[in-house]
Amino acid sequence: MRSATTSIAIDRDRLLHRLGELAQIGRIQGTSGCSRLALTDADRAGRDLVRTWMEDLGLTVRIDGIGNVIATTHHGGGDGPGSGPAPVMAGSHIDTVATGGRYDGNLGVIAGLEVIETVLAAGVELHRPLAVGFFTDEEGSRFPPDMLGSLVYAGGLSLENALAIVGIDGAVVGEELDRIGYLGPAPLPGPAPHAFVELHIEQGPVLESEGIRIGVVEGVQGISWTELRITGQSNHAGTTPMPLRRDAGLAAARIACFVRDLAVELGGSQVGTVGAITLAPNLVNVVAAEATMTVDLRNTDDVALSEAERRLELCVSGVERSEGVTVAMRRLAQYEPVSFDPEVVAIVEKVAGQMELPSRRMPSGAGHDAQMMARICPTGMIFVPSAGGISHNPAEHTEPDDLEAGANVLLATMLELAEARW
Amino acid sequence: MRSATTSIAIDRDRLLHRLGELAQIGRIQGTSGCSRLALTDADRAGRDLVRTWMEDLGLTVRIDGIGNVIATTHHGGGDGPGSGPAPVMAGSHIDTVATGGRYDGNLGVIAGLEVIETVLAAGVELHRPLAVGFFTDEEGSRFPPDMLGSLVYAGGLSLENALAIVGIDGAVVGEELDRIGYLGPAPLPGPAPHAFVELHIEQGPVLESEGIRIGVVEGVQGISWTELRITGQSNHAGTTPMPLRRDAGLAAARIACFVRDLAVELGGSQVGTVGAITLAPNLVNVVAAEATMTVDLRNTDDVALSEAERRLELCVSGVERSEGVTVAMRRLAQYEPVSFDPEVVAIVEKVAGQMELPSRRMPSGAGHDAQMMARICPTGMIFVPSAGGISHNPAEHTEPDDLEAGANVLLATMLELAEARW
Repeated sequence: MRSATTSIAIDRDRLLHRLGELAQIGRIQGTSGCSRLALTDADRAGRDLVRTWMEDLGLTVRIDGIGNVIATTHHGGGDGPGSGPAPVMAGSHIDTVATGGRYDGNLGVIAGLEVIETVLAAGVELHRPLAVGFFTDEEGSRFPPDMLGSLVYAGGLSLENALAIVGIDGAVVGEELDRIGYLGPAPLPGPAPHAFVELHIEQGPVLESEGIRIGVVEGVQGISWTELRITGQSNHAGTTPMPLRRDAGLAAARIACFVRDLAVELGGSQVGTVGAITLAPNLVNVVAAEATMTVDLRNTDDVALSEAERRLELCVSGVERSEGVTVAMRRLAQYEPVSFDPEVVAIVEKVAGQMELPSRRMPSGAGHDAQMMARICPTGMIFVPSAGGISHNPAEHTEPDDLEAGANVLLATMLELAEARW
Repeated sequence: MRSATTSIAIDRDRLLHRLGELAQIGRIQGTSGCSRLALTDADRAGRDLVRTWMEDLGLTVRIDGIGNVIATTHHGGGDGPGSGPAPVMAGSHIDTVATGGRYDGNLGVIAGLEVIETVLAAGVELHRPLAVGFFTDEEGSRFPPDMLGSLVYAGGLSLENALAIVGIDGAVVGEELDRIGYLGPAPLPGPAPHAFVELHIEQGPVLESEGIRIGVVEGVQGISWTELRITGQSNHAGTTPMPLRRDAGLAAARIACFVRDLAVELGGSQVGTVGAITLAPNLVNVVAAEATMTVDLRNTDDVALSEAERRLELCVSGVERSEGVTVAMRRLAQYEPVSFDPEVVAIVEKVAGQMELPSRRMPSGAGHDAQMMARICPTGMIFVPSAGGISHNPAEHTEPDDLEAGANVLLATMLELAEARW
């Protein structure tokens, strides 16, 4: 049977066609990108389409209380989630940021569907069923936090609390799920699969810049997000001597420069970003009274990440003294680094090698549903290159050859996991 | 006659009462401040009140085509603007920023009225008539540019162009003037007074911090405003290695820090402010693709100000190279430094000394109507302290003793100018 499984391959045209069809929903005119914020009408339309494809393959589709949709192949006698062996599951998400691309998330779902159709069409019999799912609100762009659906699935947040979350537009998760018809009956936390594998675009420039086709993802960087609210004093830009200023905007600029310098100094996998700065009153001729800014620090090494946090706090204290401002710090998110299952990682690396696809081990800098699933089952991820490292942008692009290669690595990985008798 | 003029003084209670009455119009609840944006209904109500006071004193009130209101004492035979000697004029503005104080501008108008009432009540006869006026839209908060009314009065902008200006709310200057009944018949550019003196709060902390009562204003700093539009590349904050970033937000922060360091290094009267920074997409986990920021540079020395502009351009070029961004610079405003008339400045200094009020010569960091009037007649300004240096803020405050002292210096200055036979 092993020889049979390595001789099959996914259908490239079918994969690309489904990616293209899904990308028509919420398409941003004049671009290849999509806007399907979680639980909007566009998200519903995308969900309905993928669910139709799942049903067309004869899969059992279950929708849980947070709107995650998981489709499983029939296997042996029972088809309840508790009967028979646990499935090998692929999955990701189909919600996008407001101005997103067509591959982020969608690739992992459509490729999982493609793997199952390929296996079913080839009549391959496996020790375990296969499953593919999409999780609700991975992006977190409408409803914080991100990775919401997989977080609830893995038991990291109660369903009650999740349903009460209020979005940036004032909408409530539970009400929106009900409105779009995706408030399902399947229980949460969800049943643990035998293993979980997520194919995803890299969303960074490393694979492309190194000419590598497959990223063997060893884990996810730890993330520390901090919001800083800086209070200075509003004053006239013309009449206030420099030594007497308490300039919240200058304080924000000093901290932003520090974050860059810190990341460069610490090196390794450390990155640091000040993506948001908002000044008040934000006028050309008024010294800013207030600044709100965010600091995003990430590292695969938890100790190094804590050191970066400590250094940030020291910098902030110094700026408080030197600029005469006060800074209130609030932790917005703090995820420890996640290590994926060594055996799953090794399988991904091995099958890429068997296909003669250049690969490298790497961390994920972004958060993914896989890091939530890693809490409940052996988990791995496969990356394919992102052109120019661009994502969360309609210009996001991955070459068709790479999409196909990634889906075939997913296929081979899932087959090996489904055959194995761990 | 000289002895008579130095023995009179303004009526403190009447001055404070009128300031308080005017501050009731557009008052910001729970504060001492006002909101009377130019040519709004609140501005109309303020204008009507001050105009009534002018008429109650029997002054001849003239309204010109941009809504400037100038009241003149009767003098000798004629009372037309072209007959008899030109008046010695006080004045300022009564419009405020959206969240303004009660003294900025208003003090110069109410004190001018107080000076005239004092002179009339004392029966002092002068060689020249006195006048007090308020100019339209000094703040520029609703209709750019600032100092609009005095600019048109002094011939720096055609009436036609001024009337066509569109405000931040879409309103048009000419239509709003007509609507509130202040599209007057007096011709523009306006007639040159014999001299112009503006009493104003300092809007900075220098006088208070040095314990000085009277600022003898020698001129107005030159102003250079530049808008910078920085284009980088939006990227994922977790997955983009530091060396591959083109971070528009970091570029803005580098430039903001440079502006501060430059002002400190150049010293003297040089100030530099980055009051506005706006990032896009302004998200915690996205490297900013674009940043828009403003740089406000001021110096009393035109050569030094040009040097500061040159250094800013060098910094921007360096940031373009080091951060891989492109920066488009646009000059928003550029006013050369203004020097007030040495004789008027000397009179202000002398009369403050005669009253035993501690004074110092100083530049104005802010723009004022006086700098426009300086184009057409000998001009000076008198500053009184601003508590904490705060203005453009409902918390703006000047002690009653200082308001009174400033008004008495204005009185003595105008008397000397009106008696003199230059």
